[in-house]
Amino acid sequence: MSLNLQYEDIGKEFVQQYYAIFDDPANRKNVINFYNATDSFMTFEGNQIQGAPKILEKVQSLSFQKIARVITTVDSQPTSDGGVLIIVLGRLKCDDDPPHAFSQIFLLKPNGGSLFVAHDIFRLNIHNSA
Amino acid sequence: MSLNLQYEDIGKEFVQQYYAIFDDPANRKNVINFYNATDSFMTFEGNQIQGAPKILEKVQSLSFQKIARVITTVDSQPTSDGGVLIIVLGRLKCDDDPPHAFSQIFLLKPNGGSLFVAHDIFRLNIHNSA
Repeated sequence: MSLNLQYEDIGKEFVQQYYAIFDDPANRKNVINFYNATDSFMTFEGNQIQGAPKILEKVQSLSFQKIARVITTVDSQPTSDGGVLIIVLGRLKCDDDPPHAFSQIFLLKPNGGSLFVAHDIFRLNIHNSA
Repeated sequence: MSLNLQYEDIGKEFVQQYYAIFDDPANRKNVINFYNATDSFMTFEGNQIQGAPKILEKVQSLSFQKIARVITTVDSQPTSDGGVLIIVLGRLKCDDDPPHAFSQIFLLKPNGGSLFVAHDIFRLNIHNSA
């Protein structure tokens, strides 16, 4: 076990950095830098994708421009390999669509001195309202 | 990398088994068998707990008896150590409370021939409705 005791700060900083890039249409393609060329998994609304090039393709296929995002909660836990598991709950509004609740999890893994997104699962909670 | 290619079936079966035990008041204490005595992390509505005994204490402190639960989606991914990362979205209704959307993630890790819950993060989406 080599727990990263900064997991809570890392989780919050990562979420802020990631969405700052993702939510900016001019900058969105740079989220690719968070992923590994072959080992990263993304599940986007049930569609499974592996490796940074295909993840970039998916991200670039999203047709909305503007995203208004509100983060409700960020929970993080340290993993035994020095990584961080993060779950984000919030709401987002794309262009003129109605707002939706969403849940997204990131599993960050260490690689040399830095962390990359090994796992990313995103879901709108469209059919999930209380 | 030793990916478990049965990750999707494992995820669905685990979710079914886990909630069948958790949602049965007479059986709920047995969820403890899914966790490791020292290494498992639970974050329950923002409260962080580590190790099976404390997780059991938390589970037994929950005051509701009946849970009506609807699972909306289960997404799973295989992790590089042979484990499975799972996110569950759904709705639940405890006793006579109003129904709420919830999100829960489980990170299952291999230990000998079986998998245990290394990470568990649960959140009601109370402040998260679209």
